[in-house]
Amino acid sequence: LTAAGVHVSARDLEDFVARIFTAKGMRPDAAATVADVLCFANRRGIDSHGVSRIASYLGYIDKGHLDPCAEPVLRPIGPSLFVLAAQRAAGPVAMTRAVDEAIVRARAGGVCVGLVSETTHTGAVGYYSSRAAAADCAALIVGAGPPNMAYHGARAASLSTSPITLAVPGGAAPLALDMATSIAAMGRLYEARDAGEPLPEGWALAADGAPTTDPEAAAITLPLGGPKGSGLALLIECVTGVLCGTPILTRMLGPGATRRHMQNALILVIDIAAVRPVAEFRADIESLSALVRALPRRHEDEEILLPGERGARTAARTAMTGIALSKATWRRLGEIALSLGIALPPTGEPKDA
Amino acid sequence: LTAAGVHVSARDLEDFVARIFTAKGMRPDAAATVADVLCFANRRGIDSHGVSRIASYLGYIDKGHLDPCAEPVLRPIGPSLFVLAAQRAAGPVAMTRAVDEAIVRARAGGVCVGLVSETTHTGAVGYYSSRAAAADCAALIVGAGPPNMAYHGARAASLSTSPITLAVPGGAAPLALDMATSIAAMGRLYEARDAGEPLPEGWALAADGAPTTDPEAAAITLPLGGPKGSGLALLIECVTGVLCGTPILTRMLGPGATRRHMQNALILVIDIAAVRPVAEFRADIESLSALVRALPRRHEDEEILLPGERGARTAARTAMTGIALSKATWRRLGEIALSLGIALPPTGEPKDA
Repeated sequence: LTAAGVHVSARDLEDFVARIFTAKGMRPDAAATVADVLCFANRRGIDSHGVSRIASYLGYIDKGHLDPCAEPVLRPIGPSLFVLAAQRAAGPVAMTRAVDEAIVRARAGGVCVGLVSETTHTGAVGYYSSRAAAADCAALIVGAGPPNMAYHGARAASLSTSPITLAVPGGAAPLALDMATSIAAMGRLYEARDAGEPLPEGWALAADGAPTTDPEAAAITLPLGGPKGSGLALLIECVTGVLCGTPILTRMLGPGATRRHMQNALILVIDIAAVRPVAEFRADIESLSALVRALPRRHEDEEILLPGERGARTAARTAMTGIALSKATWRRLGEIALSLGIALPPTGEPKDA
Repeated sequence: LTAAGVHVSARDLEDFVARIFTAKGMRPDAAATVADVLCFANRRGIDSHGVSRIASYLGYIDKGHLDPCAEPVLRPIGPSLFVLAAQRAAGPVAMTRAVDEAIVRARAGGVCVGLVSETTHTGAVGYYSSRAAAADCAALIVGAGPPNMAYHGARAASLSTSPITLAVPGGAAPLALDMATSIAAMGRLYEARDAGEPLPEGWALAADGAPTTDPEAAAITLPLGGPKGSGLALLIECVTGVLCGTPILTRMLGPGATRRHMQNALILVIDIAAVRPVAEFRADIESLSALVRALPRRHEDEEILLPGERGARTAARTAMTGIALSKATWRRLGEIALSLGIALPPTGEPKDA
C-alpha cells in the first residue's frame, strides 16, 4: 500500500465487489450487476460513484432500506410506458432491468418511457444511458433521491442532487453526459473530505445552513445556477417519485418524516432506427464531434473534450494499469472484507499507462 | 410615451401582433397562435421572448427562412412517436401543433414523444410545457437552434442556448421550469443592450472570443456550469436535429456553412392519469410546493419561489395593468406598424397593480 493508494485490476475488483453482495444474500447475477455498475465508475475515473459507495450500500441493507433479495415488479401501462416497482432492490439491479426493458420496447414501438420507483442509490446514471446508446438508442434519464441539496434561497437540504444523463451512439464511444443538478455532486464532497482539501467557495453549506469550505462541515450542496439547478431537481422529483406515487421529499421533509433511503428515476429511450438510418445518424454525430474538437480554443493548451470523452480515455488507461483506489477507500474495503470473511483482491504498485 | 415606455392591454397587443403576421401572409389561426405565444412571454414578464422578437421573425420571413404559409407535415412512426416536419413554419405554429398531437397520443397510450424538425424560433418553450400541464400531463421539452453559445473551452459560437422546460400540473398554476442551458439567454443580452447596462462578468464573449461585459460587444453567451450546460446543449442538438436528420450545427459550422435560421425540438408528454389518479398527483404536488415555500431561508427577506411562480404572479398583475413595453420595443413596433400600414394598439400610462 503506497501513500497514494493501490492499483487493482478491474476484473479482480468486480469479482471482489460481487462476492461482497452475494455474502449479503444477493443472487449472483444481481451482485454481478451491482459490481459492474460500481466498477464502471471507477474504470472511468468517477471514483465518487464507485466502490467507495459500498459501505453505504451495506448500511442500507443492514437498515432494511435495500432488500438484496428483492424482485422488481414490472407494471406495463402501454406498449411504450411502464413502471418498474423496484421493491427496494439495489439501484443497479432495478435500473439495468428497466433500461433493458425500455430498449426492447423502443425497438418495437420506436420509443419507451420507464419509471423506476422505490429503488436505492443507482450509482453513475451514465452507465444506463450508455447501455442504451450501445444498443443504437438515444436515452435521457433523470433520477431523484433523498434531500442533500438546498433549494435556491433555502438553508436546508431540501432537494436531491438529481442527476441527468443523456447519451447517443457516436463514433468510437457514445456521446454521454452525466451531471448532477448541483454545482458539485455529493461524492465530490466526500472525495475532498478523504483528501483533506478545502472546497471551493459556493459549493456547500454546513448542516446549520451557513456557507462553508470545510469538507468535514459541508453537509448540503448548492444548486447549479441557483434557480435553474434547483428547478430541475424539483421537477425531476415531480416526474419520478411524485408521478409514481412514491415521493421522496414530502416523505423525508414533511410531517412524520422518515430517513429511509430511496430513489426513483425516469428513463426515456428512443430507437434511432425508427426515426432515421443509424449509419446516417452516426455519421452526423461524428461530423459534429469533429467540428467541436476543432473549435478555436479559449486557452490554447486546454483541449476541447466531448461529453464522456474524459471517462472513455480513463477507461482505456485503467484497462492497462488497473484501477487506482485511494488509501481511504482501500482501508474501508479492507474493513468490509474482514467483516464478511472475504479476501481482498490482489493489488499492484501504481503504474503509468 | 413616457420615459419608461408604455402600457398596452394584453388583448390589444395580441390583436396587433396577429395583424402583423396576417399582413405577412399567415393564416389568421396561425397568426393568432404566434401572437398568443409571444404575448404569453410578455404577460409573464419574460420580455426577452415576447414581442421584441417580432422584428427578427419578420426578417426570417423576408429572407425565406420562415414560411408564413407552411403547413407542417405529420409523420407518425408509432402510436407514441412522431416527427412533425415543420416545413419552416413559425415556431409557435409547429410547436403548438406538436404538443397538442403529443397530448392526444399520450391520452391514448400513456406517453408520446414528438420530434419537431425544421421549424423556426419557438418563443418561450414554457408555453408548450404549460399547455401540456394544463391538460393534466407532465411534459419535458428541449430545443436547439443556431449557434450563439460557446462550447466549454471554445472561443466561438458553437452551440445554441438550447432551452429545457419541464412542467407538471400543480395547485393554482403548473410547476413550470423554462431555462436556457447558457448562463443567460440571448434575450437577456438584448435587454441589457436596450437598457444600456453592462453585463455581469462571465456571461458573454465578444465576436472575437474575448470576454466582455459590454452589451453592444457581447455576441456569444457562455454555458451554464461550463461542461454541464455545454454538454446539455450538445446532446440536445443530437436528440433533436441530428435525430431528425435536420442537424443545425454541422450545417452552420461545417464546410459550406449556411446561416439560414432553423430550430428543432423534442417534446415528451406523459398522461398522468395513465400512471396514477390525477387528484392524488396534484395533492402530492401541492404538499411538496407548500414544503418548499416554508423552507428556512438563507436571507430572511428573500421569499422562496417555485418554478413558474414569478411569471404567474406577473401574469396576474399584467392582467390588471396591461403589459409594459420598453421604449426601444415600442419604437420598433411603431416602425413595423408603419411599414405594414397597421395601427399601433392603444396605450395607457404605466399603472401600478
